[in-house]
Parts: sequence; structure tokens; C-alpha cells
Amino acid sequence: MNTEQPYLLTPGPITTTLSVKQAMLQDWGSWDGDFRAKTAELCRHLIALIDGEDSHVCVPLQGSGTFAVEATLATLVPKAGKLLVLMNGAYGQRMGKIMDYLGRDYVALDKGDYAPPRAEEVEAVLVADPAITHVAVVHCETSSGILNPIEEIAEVVARHQRGLIIDSMSAFGAVAISAKTVQFDALISSANKCFEGVPGFGFSLIRQRALEASKGNAHSLSMDLLDQWQYLAKTGQWRYTPPTHVVAAFLQALKEHGEEGGVAGRHARYQRNQQRLVAGMRQLGFETLLSDEWLSPIIITFFSPGHEHFDFQTFYDRMKAQGFIIYPGKLTAAESFRLGCIGQLHDPQIDAVLAAVATVLNEMNIPDGTPAHALNAAASA
Amino acid sequence: MNTEQPYLLTPGPITTTLSVKQAMLQDWGSWDGDFRAKTAELCRHLIALIDGEDSHVCVPLQGSGTFAVEATLATLVPKAGKLLVLMNGAYGQRMGKIMDYLGRDYVALDKGDYAPPRAEEVEAVLVADPAITHVAVVHCETSSGILNPIEEIAEVVARHQRGLIIDSMSAFGAVAISAKTVQFDALISSANKCFEGVPGFGFSLIRQRALEASKGNAHSLSMDLLDQWQYLAKTGQWRYTPPTHVVAAFLQALKEHGEEGGVAGRHARYQRNQQRLVAGMRQLGFETLLSDEWLSPIIITFFSPGHEHFDFQTFYDRMKAQGFIIYPGKLTAAESFRLGCIGQLHDPQIDAVLAAVATVLNEMNIPDGTPAHALNAAASA
Ligand SMILES: Cc1ncc(COP(=O)(O)O)c(C=O)c1O
Ligand SMILES: Cc1ncc(COP(=O)(O)O)c(C=O)c1O
Repeated sequence: MNTEQPYLLTPGPITTTLSVKQAMLQDWGSWDGDFRAKTAELCRHLIALIDGEDSHVCVPLQGSGTFAVEATLATLVPKAGKLLVLMNGAYGQRMGKIMDYLGRDYVALDKGDYAPPRAEEVEAVLVADPAITHVAVVHCETSSGILNPIEEIAEVVARHQRGLIIDSMSAFGAVAISAKTVQFDALISSANKCFEGVPGFGFSLIRQRALEASKGNAHSLSMDLLDQWQYLAKTGQWRYTPPTHVVAAFLQALKEHGEEGGVAGRHARYQRNQQRLVAGMRQLGFETLLSDEWLSPIIITFFSPGHEHFDFQTFYDRMKAQGFIIYPGKLTAAESFRLGCIGQLHDPQIDAVLAAVATVLNEMNIPDGTPAHALNAAASA
Repeated sequence: MNTEQPYLLTPGPITTTLSVKQAMLQDWGSWDGDFRAKTAELCRHLIALIDGEDSHVCVPLQGSGTFAVEATLATLVPKAGKLLVLMNGAYGQRMGKIMDYLGRDYVALDKGDYAPPRAEEVEAVLVADPAITHVAVVHCETSSGILNPIEEIAEVVARHQRGLIIDSMSAFGAVAISAKTVQFDALISSANKCFEGVPGFGFSLIRQRALEASKGNAHSLSMDLLDQWQYLAKTGQWRYTPPTHVVAAFLQALKEHGEEGGVAGRHARYQRNQQRLVAGMRQLGFETLLSDEWLSPIIITFFSPGHEHFDFQTFYDRMKAQGFIIYPGKLTAAESFRLGCIGQLHDPQIDAVLAAVATVLNEMNIPDGTPAHALNAAASA
């Protein structure tokens, strides 16, 4: 399989449909009514996906997903507030780094590279520290691929009356979440992951009451989500020039998301991709970092083969020559790589990925059945 | 003239070529070498346009132009620094607002809605206040369309050894500026104005020495341009997911910019657009806010006709029906509107705009030769 445009087995940007990209073949005036209608539809659609019509508002923000995470933390956690960050990977750590820049108080519950934070642990921290006003958690921690137990965490945070901020960058759109059953102050995501749009903006779905109470919190003009929302509510426009083409592509992507059956339909396809990929890779002798219970339908970490011939860059280049862009691992404790299940990947692509891996291992003279890289025994969370 | 896709007579987003938009019909992995090569080429090209190879580095930033302005101010003006903001319109004022959020010291030299800040005035402020470390100025103040006298301002700022930060959002690419003859610490612009790309990122061309000395200044992780640059220098990648399609479109736009003769060629076309537009509008009885000396080749403010039948929204809607999206004015003292000269506008489009304005005035029952709206006498700067 050798296509001109390699498939992206990465957790965003991902491979989008041609129709999503073709939606960018027009220019829009950001002040114009036609574009304002697009923004309104985008917000309405996203809020409907979380059953948030009565409680939440959508605040889109120019920039990458990290900008939306930083903006949400800065807008919602008051200067005199205190955040508990649940960390089990790079994106939880990044929230800590954001708090360092903000100079606001926070503590971390750090579970290392891939272990899930559990409700009892969170509860213990909240009980011990009444100064904590908010809790932040990553939904799918993309650095390992773990799907964190959001429901049990949200339950305990709500019971202790703190605000919950969810970084659902790589999960929203393919993992169901309803504001009617899971209590959260904000859920953050972006255009270019499970919605299969192209990158250029993020968004935060924020409890209106919490947003209205946030005056004076933001550290930044560009990232003040209260100001962004108020301007949008008043004028129908983004405060500053929106990525018009990326927004148009996203609207097409939302349409296709709906046609696939919405969150449930997308989840089903990604789950199928994941199971097919994991089964096939295991047959080739690979091992996953996580036990099945914690695998997300988004992205999988595999240990690299424990063979002297294995070299990630060579593996990467040869997989690319086969038509697939793969992703490096982020583990500190063992050599690994990641394969994404999201984007325009269907059975034929997954089968082709598996065939390509077999071919490349052969080319690299790594025999079938080579045991995986170190850390195997301790690996399953 | 009634096209499916109206022409944008706005100062960005603008009408781009089809080939620029078609460059977005592919997906890229942001980690991949092919995309890293695009980023490297983008930076190299922009630095060459300011003759900055020996002095400046390019730091692209996700988000709209305002994000790049805020990031540059926050990265370069130290917490204990003091900024002089030259204001003569909305974008100068916005820099003041950014400084309010940053909580850093600044003073404004505010010339009102459209009068240019002059070297002598700037010098007087700098002499009187040795605490000032940096000066910020808008190159083309898009809110009126005035082209501010950058050279004389840069000369006086350099002579008094302060750092100069230029918001050249709407000028760079069409107004020549060389780091060899004009001294500045940073020049900020974005993808979707005179380079005729699509919106989604901005960039700051920063004196390397000034950037290297900026550690600890930034208020924001996402907007820390030192961190962004260091990561880019080390890995060839943007720190967080770049707007890959927008970047690809920009590379195509840069190619077409070169084919048109670079900055000089683009300036010539825009200047021609401006002169044709102003002459034609004056023939229809319109008056420009600014005297010819201060008109930029970017965007022109016209006073609205002083006739009871004139209503901006109606004018806007009817111009749109004719195939043109126009732009509202930003003056407080008089009713006005703006027409942009940038983007894919050539003689036939300019002639069609003029014909459309004549048609719409007829439709609105506004006789030819109706005098312009108030403030005429005092209007020429
Ligand atoms: C969980 C999570 N949070 C945040 C981010 C950051 O998003 P971006 O790279 O768009 O800034 C990512 C990106 O992969 C992510 O997976
Ligand atoms: C001079 C100037 N500065 C800043 C901006 C802000 O750019 P953006 O709307 O992309 O944030 C603009 C936009 O028109 C501008 O003209």
C-alpha cells in the first residue's frame, strides 16, 4: 500500500475526508452573516452533543488545543483559587506547567506515566485540602492512550462541590459524555481529533454560571474566554479573526460525524479499529503498555521490539514508505511507539497497517515473535 | 457582477487564489519531516523578506494576529519594563488593553482616531521618561487605513536605545521594511493579509539577541515565544499542533507572492487598486478620511454619504448582493465605511466595485453628488 498521501496514525492532525478539506475551497468574511451562521451552528451542535442546552455554553478559541486548555484554566480558576491536577502523562503535566506560568496555586496527584487516578485517591486529597476549588483531569491521556475513569472522578468532585475541568482533547466526539449525568464546569476539545476536522481552533464547553462568575480571572486578553463569549453572544462574531476555512471544514466534519451516527457511531468505528489493531499487533508479537481494561479507542502504546535491529527512526521511515505515518512513544521507562485509531481509518486501512508492520519487521531483519522491550512485567496498570 | 463567492473588500480574511486554497487538500502529520520542511521554508522566506538573516529569527504562533501581538509584548517587555504605546486607532488601543491584562507598566501617546504619531512627539516622551524600555507602534493602522511613519519613529527609538515593536499585521508583505535600515526588535504579522494566505496563525520576526534575553518574561505557556522558538530550533516542530493546512496554504501564498515580484510587486498592485478606487469613489462624490499623503495601499476609510436614505446595513447587504463584502468604519466622530485594496483584487474587480457602488446608491435613492457625512473639514490629517 503506497499512497501519495500517507495515512496519519497520529492523534491529530488525522486523516480527514476529501469533502472536509474541500469545504475550505472558499473564502469567507468573518464579519459577514454567512460566517456568523456557521459559528452559531458550530456552537449549537457541540452543546447538543453534551446535552448542555440548559447549562453550558460553547466558547471557541483560535489556536491549538493547548491554548484552549490554558484559557479555560485561566478563566475559571480564580487568582485566589487552587487547582488539583490529576496527572498520568504529558497532558496532565502540561496543565501543571500552565499553572506555573499563571502563578496560581495548585497541587498534583501524579500517577506517573500511565496509571489511572481513582476516585478514592481524589477524594482523599479533596478532604485533606479544603482550599482546593477546582480539579483538572485529562479524559484520554493521549501520551499513553489510557482512558481515565471520568465518571467516578466527576462524581467525587461534584460531591465535594469543587469545579471539574476536563481536557477531552482526544476523546470528545468519540467517547460519550453528558452534562446531565456527569457534572463538569468545562470540557475542552479541538477541531482536529475525533471530530476529524483540520487543526486551527479549540473550544471549551463551559457551565454558563461558572463562566459568568469569572470576571477578572483571565491573565490574557487573547485567552479571556469570558470576553470571547460575551462578544460572541453580542455580535455573533469571534473577537479576533477566526480561522474561517478551518471552521468551514469543521462544519462539514460535524455533518459527517452526524451521518456516521454521532458519538456512538464514531465510537463504534474507533473501537473496532482498536480491537483489530491490537489483535493483529499481538499476533505479530507486540505487547500493549496497558491492559485491555484501560485501552482507549483513540491511540495505543506498543512496546518496541526488544531487538538490537530495532530503531524507531528506521521503523518510522519504512512505515512511511508503506503509506503510514506513525507516532513516537512518550514513555520514560521503556522504548515504545504509538498507533492512532482515529481519523479516516476503516478495516482496509487497519489491515494494511498490520501488513506494513509485518513487511517492515522483515525488512529490518527482526524475526516474528521477538519479545517486546523491557518493563513488560510491570507494565499492565 | 454577481459571483457565487463574493469578493472580500476587507482587511483580512481576504480573497485568496484558488491555488492557495487547493494547497489545503491534503493532510500532514505535524511531526513528520515533510511538514517540518514547510515550517523551515516559511521561516527562512519571511526572514529573507526583511533582510534579517544576520539579526532576526521567525517565531510562528498558532491563533489570530492578536495572539502574536500579545505574545510578542509579553515575551519582550520584561515585567519590570515599561512600554510606550503609540495609538491612533483600534489596534494601538488593543496593545494598551493587552498591557492592562499583563499588569505591566505602560504609557500611551494617543493621537486619537487617525492622526499620525510623529518622531518629535515620540522623542519628547522618551526624553522625559527614561523608565521606558520599549515602544510599540502599528505600521498600517487598519482602523483608519493610515500608514504610520515607521522610518522616522524607528530612527528616534533607536537613537534613544529603546526596543521597537511593530504591529505590521496589515502592512507586511506589501510595504517594504528592511532590518538593515530600520531598527526593530520585533515585527508582527499574520498569514491572511498582504501575503494572501488563509487565517490561522501569526508570526513575529524577532531580533535574536532580544529574544534570547527574554527568559522568564512570558505570562503564558502557549504564548511564550522564547519557548516556542527554542523548541522549533531544536526539533523543527511547532510546540503544539500547528494549523497544518493553513501553513500549507501559506507556503503556496508565499510562492505566488514571489511570482508577483515580492513585496515590491504586491505593493504596486495594491497601490494601483487604491488609486483607482479612491479616484472612482471621489468621482461618485465620496470623500476619504485621510489626505492622500497618509493613505495606505491597504484599506481606505470613506465617509458615508450624508443623506437620510443612507443606512450602512442596507448598503452592506446590497453591495453583497452585487458580489462584494465591504467593511464597517471604526470612527467615533463620523459615520464611515472601509474598502480594502488587498487580496485577489485587480483592475476588473476594482471597476466592478465602483459600478456596484453607483448601482447601490441609485437603488437607495441617494443622488450623485450628495455631500459626505459630517467632520469633512477637520478630517484630513
Ligand atoms: C489530551 C490532550 N490534551 C492537549 C493536547 C494539546 O493539543 P494541541 O497539540 O492542539 O495544543 C493534546 C494533543 O494531542 C491532547 O491529546
Ligand atoms: C494592524 C492590526 N493589528 C492587529 C490585528 C488583529 O489581527 P487578528 O484579527 O488576526 O487578531 C489586525 C487585524 O485586522 C490589524 O489590522
